[in-house]
Amino acid sequence: LSGREGVLSFLKENDGFLISTHVNPDGDALGSAIALQLALNELGKRSTVFVSGGVPAIYSFLPRTEIVIDRVDQDEASDLLLILLDCNSPARASLEGLAFARSAVIDHHETESDFGDARWVDPRVPATGMMVLEAIKALGVKISKEMAVNLYTAIAVDTGTFRYSNTNADTFRAAAELLDAGAEPGMISDSLYNTWNRNRFSLLCMNLSTIETRGAVSLSVVSDEMFKNSSTGHPDTESFVNYPLLMSDILVSACFRETGKDAWKVSLRSKGELNMAKVAERFGGGGHKNAAGYSFNGDLDTARQALLKSLGDLFNL
Amino acid sequence: LSGREGVLSFLKENDGFLISTHVNPDGDALGSAIALQLALNELGKRSTVFVSGGVPAIYSFLPRTEIVIDRVDQDEASDLLLILLDCNSPARASLEGLAFARSAVIDHHETESDFGDARWVDPRVPATGMMVLEAIKALGVKISKEMAVNLYTAIAVDTGTFRYSNTNADTFRAAAELLDAGAEPGMISDSLYNTWNRNRFSLLCMNLSTIETRGAVSLSVVSDEMFKNSSTGHPDTESFVNYPLLMSDILVSACFRETGKDAWKVSLRSKGELNMAKVAERFGGGGHKNAAGYSFNGDLDTARQALLKSLGDLFNL
Repeated sequence: LSGREGVLSFLKENDGFLISTHVNPDGDALGSAIALQLALNELGKRSTVFVSGGVPAIYSFLPRTEIVIDRVDQDEASDLLLILLDCNSPARASLEGLAFARSAVIDHHETESDFGDARWVDPRVPATGMMVLEAIKALGVKISKEMAVNLYTAIAVDTGTFRYSNTNADTFRAAAELLDAGAEPGMISDSLYNTWNRNRFSLLCMNLSTIETRGAVSLSVVSDEMFKNSSTGHPDTESFVNYPLLMSDILVSACFRETGKDAWKVSLRSKGELNMAKVAERFGGGGHKNAAGYSFNGDLDTARQALLKSLGDLFNL
Repeated sequence: LSGREGVLSFLKENDGFLISTHVNPDGDALGSAIALQLALNELGKRSTVFVSGGVPAIYSFLPRTEIVIDRVDQDEASDLLLILLDCNSPARASLEGLAFARSAVIDHHETESDFGDARWVDPRVPATGMMVLEAIKALGVKISKEMAVNLYTAIAVDTGTFRYSNTNADTFRAAAELLDAGAEPGMISDSLYNTWNRNRFSLLCMNLSTIETRGAVSLSVVSDEMFKNSSTGHPDTESFVNYPLLMSDILVSACFRETGKDAWKVSLRSKGELNMAKVAERFGGGGHKNAAGYSFNGDLDTARQALLKSLGDLFNL
């Protein structure tokens, strides 16, 4: 058995799971993992959620984050069945050194590998949370309020609260079910979006003041000095790169964050069909069509020129 | 017959309608009006959409906006049946001088009057578009793609694309139906949110640089000089007042826009239960709980102090 049925059999027929997901987990990763653990628990099955680096502070509003552990060793792994969610290779979860008894994958990303004794990978689905919702129902477990908040958050984050073009009618039907089960959209949206501290807001204003445009491309910077002046850090820059896309004639937005002497993290966002993953891959990074990133060593001007050249080569931008 | 059934009878048993909605129409107002006109047309009934001031440029992406007229006179009105949508008094639609043969109201705002031979007013419903969707289905009309885009926009705008706490499971079920009928969430969200020109974006950056906070209150300014320096106008400030609410400890955001010598328009936004309509009413304005506004004559400092005093009096802010 492979695909959806293979993974469902894997869950039904076994016990003693380690559920994991990618490092720097987003709402889809965490919400999917916690909801699946709660469902397996309902079935009387033992399972644990492992996330390398633990739960980011922004997601502490999710119910039951306290079940997440951030350490696992080979002694434990040997007896456990691994379930990878929202990624499809152990390296993405910082688990590449460990050997598990068996493994399964539930993911909506393009395949990176053929890892997994059972694999259900479907890039057409907007969020892994939708697949986990389907799995939980197929296992005969009633969706609890705690599962609902986790799964609603998963879907909300990966569809930009239903604004991205990946949103489909099934997404809305899933959301309706999760509201029936107790998820509150207003509370979850506030928790996701309206929780900045003032320093982070100051940093945004600094970042916006650096925007320069080259045709349809916006370039902005967050320098080490800005981080210091505002007492902020890299996680505070989350979503900054999206703001220039408010402008109708900006098709690509790039944000350069200083990580050290002549060292930058570059976040890319695009509208429509412009594939940022292809750009990021040229620099050793990766991502999705409309959201990708990479690291760059060199001074800021060299970093900007290199990106503009790639955008010119690939898209005539 | 009153309520929903009364309005449905009004639509079924009559012909020759004028559909109208409030001045400065938003997506719920326009989308509801155009969709209902298209549905009545499917039934072979004559109807026209009147909007005082016409269709704002930001909504020109809606299908069939060309059917909207911005003039109507008493000669025509005498023979027409008025359908007021998303408001419940003729004054809100700039129709207070005209006498119509009969009238009906479909609205989700608190009642301002008892206007209408048939009235279906339900403040629990997040968007008038949801009531119009229900009416169109009850009339036996199949939802076309053009109706779906209009109604999806109506619902999206009045729920903050499903982020506000008024969003409920029925909202998502309606959205799923509208996607099945052809509405595209990505296109509609881009049309609503990502259509700023560069001048407007510059104005936002100027506005954000003026933010000052007093406890949980954010105060910001758009001066006449900023409008001139960025070649922008008052409609460009739409949504600026929301940005400070990204900060978790900001509960009220006020934006002061200069309209002339010592003359200001003040927009208020709040989180939770803080009722901005009560504040605006003190200054002769009005609005909803979380969004209201008023005009003020005086210099900026006087305007700011007067507002802070009111917020102190009403909420101990």
